[in-house]
Amino acid sequence: MTKHLQTDLDRLKKEVLAMGALVEESINRAIRALVAREPELAREVAAGDDAIDRKELEVEDMCLKMLALHQPVAGDLRYIIAVLKVNNDLERMGDLAGNIAERAQFLSTHPPLPVDIDFTRMVESVRRMVRQSLDALVTQDPELARKVCLSDDEVDGFQRHMFETLTSLMQRDSSTVERAVQVLSVSRHLERIGDSATNIAEDVVFMVEGDVIRHQPRGRLHRAGT
Amino acid sequence: MTKHLQTDLDRLKKEVLAMGALVEESINRAIRALVAREPELAREVAAGDDAIDRKELEVEDMCLKMLALHQPVAGDLRYIIAVLKVNNDLERMGDLAGNIAERAQFLSTHPPLPVDIDFTRMVESVRRMVRQSLDALVTQDPELARKVCLSDDEVDGFQRHMFETLTSLMQRDSSTVERAVQVLSVSRHLERIGDSATNIAEDVVFMVEGDVIRHQPRGRLHRAGT
Repeated sequence: MTKHLQTDLDRLKKEVLAMGALVEESINRAIRALVAREPELAREVAAGDDAIDRKELEVEDMCLKMLALHQPVAGDLRYIIAVLKVNNDLERMGDLAGNIAERAQFLSTHPPLPVDIDFTRMVESVRRMVRQSLDALVTQDPELARKVCLSDDEVDGFQRHMFETLTSLMQRDSSTVERAVQVLSVSRHLERIGDSATNIAEDVVFMVEGDVIRHQPRGRLHRAGT
Repeated sequence: MTKHLQTDLDRLKKEVLAMGALVEESINRAIRALVAREPELAREVAAGDDAIDRKELEVEDMCLKMLALHQPVAGDLRYIIAVLKVNNDLERMGDLAGNIAERAQFLSTHPPLPVDIDFTRMVESVRRMVRQSLDALVTQDPELARKVCLSDDEVDGFQRHMFETLTSLMQRDSSTVERAVQVLSVSRHLERIGDSATNIAEDVVFMVEGDVIRHQPRGRLHRAGT
């Protein structure tokens, strides 16, 4: 590998991490707006994050230039393609944070629902998945990436529980319908952020091992012997 | 361009079209299961489509091999990267078709809602977007691609209307909550299929013109003078 390519790869890693940091910040702000019922903060996050959009285009442009200039092969090629895909997933997460913030705008200006809707554990799991998927990318750690894929089932479980709680609330008390539908959306958006983290983790495994774990039953994520 | 690269590019176009055809078929079957209330068909589609998953991996593998082997630049490089991204969006559409089929399974084994929920126009718009985005890709037609991006607003409008109809139904009649929530999901999944078609269309514009139209206000999609 040329020294020039190595310098560019290092720079790319920094950029994709900067993108990840922006997205994490956006998710955190959306959740804070929701939980602390802060409509002004919600409005800000929902208005969109130009910084994330700009960074997405920068990272993509960087990848294309590196492919054209260095014509990398094997591991380096896989790394750049993985970053292209991760970039895409991060941008999607940013959009989902924006969607959560839109719901938070509505919810924080309406009375709280008359049941205890606790997002804490679901939010913690999703945040951990996002963090670990980015860590796995930087440290090129396929075992950590596989852990992220397994956490996805946990988040799906939280989502099902939320669905049941909210459906039965709407059936009991029709005055809750509008708000409950919005809360249900928040929970779906969180689940989809978890899905995107899983996509990133799958790309990390592919990048490091050249092994495709997409479309495999979850059981096979545990490698033989581990 | 070498003759070998041209042969591979032609083969790649055929493969991505084959992938598109599988996804369109899956969307059509999911919708038919929903509208005609066919639980058996819904079950089949919801069980997942191994053919789509296999095709996604094949297309991705082909792209990586072409990048490594031919080390393309400029337009050819952009084309292969666009196909990688389109491939990803097509796979996502296939998943969404599966999600619609899951809802159709539930809905076709429960009594119809007591209001007229007509998906026809929304489904027509979404189908047209999918078709046109693939046509734009094959014919490399950025004007057609821009049309797809503009249709997205129409689909968002249908989704908002569906949301209002279903929310007010649930408020009036609590016995409809479970089914209405499922119908609302179908409408969201349709909207997201439209979003994926829009992503494909944006990639086509980028591929042909090297022009990024993501993250632009819709008004700017009309090019000056056209």
